[in-house]
Amino acid sequence: MSAEIICVGTELLLGDILNSNSQYLAQQLAKLGIPHYYQSVVGDNPERLQQVIEIAVSRAQIIIFTGGLGPTPDDLTCETLADYFGVPLIERTDIIQDIADKFAERGRVMTDNNRKQALIPQGAEVLPNPTGTAPGIIWHPRPGLTIFTFPGVPSEMYRMWEDTAVPFLKSQGWGKEIIYSRSLKFWGIGESALAEKVAPFFDLTNPTVAPYAGKGEVRLRISAKATSQAAASDLITPIEQELKKITGLDYYGADHETLAMVVGQSLRSAGQTLSVAESCTGGGLGQMLTDVPGSSDYFWGGIISYANSVKVALLDVSPEDLDNFGAVSPIVAEQMAIGVKKRLLTTWGLSITGIAGPQGGTDTKPVGLVYIGLAGPQQQVTSVEYKFGSIRDRSFIRFISACAALDNLRRTLFTYQ
Amino acid sequence: MSAEIICVGTELLLGDILNSNSQYLAQQLAKLGIPHYYQSVVGDNPERLQQVIEIAVSRAQIIIFTGGLGPTPDDLTCETLADYFGVPLIERTDIIQDIADKFAERGRVMTDNNRKQALIPQGAEVLPNPTGTAPGIIWHPRPGLTIFTFPGVPSEMYRMWEDTAVPFLKSQGWGKEIIYSRSLKFWGIGESALAEKVAPFFDLTNPTVAPYAGKGEVRLRISAKATSQAAASDLITPIEQELKKITGLDYYGADHETLAMVVGQSLRSAGQTLSVAESCTGGGLGQMLTDVPGSSDYFWGGIISYANSVKVALLDVSPEDLDNFGAVSPIVAEQMAIGVKKRLLTTWGLSITGIAGPQGGTDTKPVGLVYIGLAGPQQQVTSVEYKFGSIRDRSFIRFISACAALDNLRRTLFTYQ
Repeated sequence: MSAEIICVGTELLLGDILNSNSQYLAQQLAKLGIPHYYQSVVGDNPERLQQVIEIAVSRAQIIIFTGGLGPTPDDLTCETLADYFGVPLIERTDIIQDIADKFAERGRVMTDNNRKQALIPQGAEVLPNPTGTAPGIIWHPRPGLTIFTFPGVPSEMYRMWEDTAVPFLKSQGWGKEIIYSRSLKFWGIGESALAEKVAPFFDLTNPTVAPYAGKGEVRLRISAKATSQAAASDLITPIEQELKKITGLDYYGADHETLAMVVGQSLRSAGQTLSVAESCTGGGLGQMLTDVPGSSDYFWGGIISYANSVKVALLDVSPEDLDNFGAVSPIVAEQMAIGVKKRLLTTWGLSITGIAGPQGGTDTKPVGLVYIGLAGPQQQVTSVEYKFGSIRDRSFIRFISACAALDNLRRTLFTYQ
Repeated sequence: MSAEIICVGTELLLGDILNSNSQYLAQQLAKLGIPHYYQSVVGDNPERLQQVIEIAVSRAQIIIFTGGLGPTPDDLTCETLADYFGVPLIERTDIIQDIADKFAERGRVMTDNNRKQALIPQGAEVLPNPTGTAPGIIWHPRPGLTIFTFPGVPSEMYRMWEDTAVPFLKSQGWGKEIIYSRSLKFWGIGESALAEKVAPFFDLTNPTVAPYAGKGEVRLRISAKATSQAAASDLITPIEQELKKITGLDYYGADHETLAMVVGQSLRSAGQTLSVAESCTGGGLGQMLTDVPGSSDYFWGGIISYANSVKVALLDVSPEDLDNFGAVSPIVAEQMAIGVKKRLLTTWGLSITGIAGPQGGTDTKPVGLVYIGLAGPQQQVTSVEYKFGSIRDRSFIRFISACAALDNLRRTLFTYQ
């Protein structure tokens, strides 16, 4: 018994988009303990799609399709499946109504081509799409064969998978022996340094421990095989605790926890508030903080001081210091942090000033030079210099600058409280 | 004549890594005009890999493998290929020497398991790997069939592709007819509505026109086959112009152009400046604007007024209006835009206030309700209401709110100038 993933779309064959759907589905199948040996990609072409279906049917019992469910003529997945299994397409009026309702909610009128999305192979069940218009199907066209279809839009697919496909697969007995993983996340330590610290753990067999380099961070994934998530968790927890003890403050959170969440939890539990002053990140730090629902409990807001005139007018940065030391300097970072804390009346003021590039670097102040300033409740003010290196691009430098600011505050909060 | 891409690696089946190699190779094949109809992923398992080879050999004349060339026992691509085509593996001493040299250069001694990478099917040519240890092969195991192997490490593969595979394929006559595409991007119109407007174009054969839904936007991809990029561009341009004419202001840019870039170009050419006031997006609009290198020419900065106290203190929003109409209201959006324009002394002030959820929605003000305010140079002030709908999640509502703000300014700039 195994599953196969088939992604349909000429845009994949042209390399226009990255096939992130395969990765998501692969992870999800592993979670449920469903073996999965093959993935295929094919374009919006009915003959070739039929060939791929033929091959998949010969070697898999669960076939998962993404893509080709939309309203336009090149969306062919349902038609081709119906054709292959020799059944007609049935127009479902409940789907048409659902699509019309969704258009109405956004103040739009449903165009006629949307009706195409309501055509479902006879005998198939609808797999509802709560966040988009094209529904999927769950279908047993033959005994021992289950077909799922999902739209290619990742967010729609994820939601449909979680809401409907997972409960269905569990009702079929899957998910009894599962692989469950926890990711420990680290900031401020490199992969090889971390790997050396925890090397003996890589020899474990259940759970296993493996390092991964993420975007500016490193992760250790602890994976256990067990009959339930609780049993897997029992295997993982003691290893997790040992790893945390060894790694100390370099560990910041697990799984979906972000630096912004961890900082937010600390601030909330201390009843403290935060404001930010951003230059090179232009709002990215504020965005990270407010990605967290409920962040208004501790995050008051900030000042994006992209122009120097804004640093002076709204953050009380000294024009003389700007002239003498430049906008990218420890003293300006500190004044920005003090300024925003004072203007927004918060416990902490956190600032970023740096050179994100690609232009603007000099010999003494290269692209990637970033200062993080932090002003705190006891009038303490600090700044830290980072050199993120000119080989990294603008977007990456901006991203890790915002993360470094959060990490800085995280370590300070931990030490201070 | 067509190519097929086969990526080998259990880590792909577990979803541990994203299959970016397929996207790269797909783009490269399109550039050379090599048709490519299928991609496959298979694990580190010789029987299943043989099956995948069997299928590929039956339908493609160029087969490109990535992965499974390393020094560890689970790297099986070369052995399996030699086995499938019934030839022995030959140990190449020149490869062993090359690997030993690379280890020596890093001050390390080559471990014995590295010798495995020097085993090449009899009759195959070495495809050198300048940046890593595992070389690939170029092999004609049968008349009319060419096999390439590459390591799975993307950077090594890219370099080997460019240095050796591209010149080889060009020497075989490829690259004379290429496929070149341009993506037209639209904001403020849905996929089905756009498809209806431009339906006749979907019947074209060279160039072809196809729609696809992006993140909150829609794209039309125009693809042409021709003997050069310039010739393809000549086929694309008249269609592009017709499409732009039909779609008017819903079209905002092509290929890598973003709303922030397009807005920036308008502001720069008009010599105007912009500041932003953000509530629910928390800095996301500023971040988008400053993603664009050189944005300091027209973007002064902004105020992240997440807390109402900041709206009053720094944006001069009326406390009475906040009480009477709430923070998410047209009048507050307008006052925020006026306030930030005044404080930062810019030509335009652009504001966002809304309910990103998941909490905070009410019957009259549901999650997804967003107001965009805009204050301009002639003292004109406008606000627009959007209902992004409770089915979208917090992160998506924040993203499209920032895009909608930019789109609003874009349309105004276009009309005003």
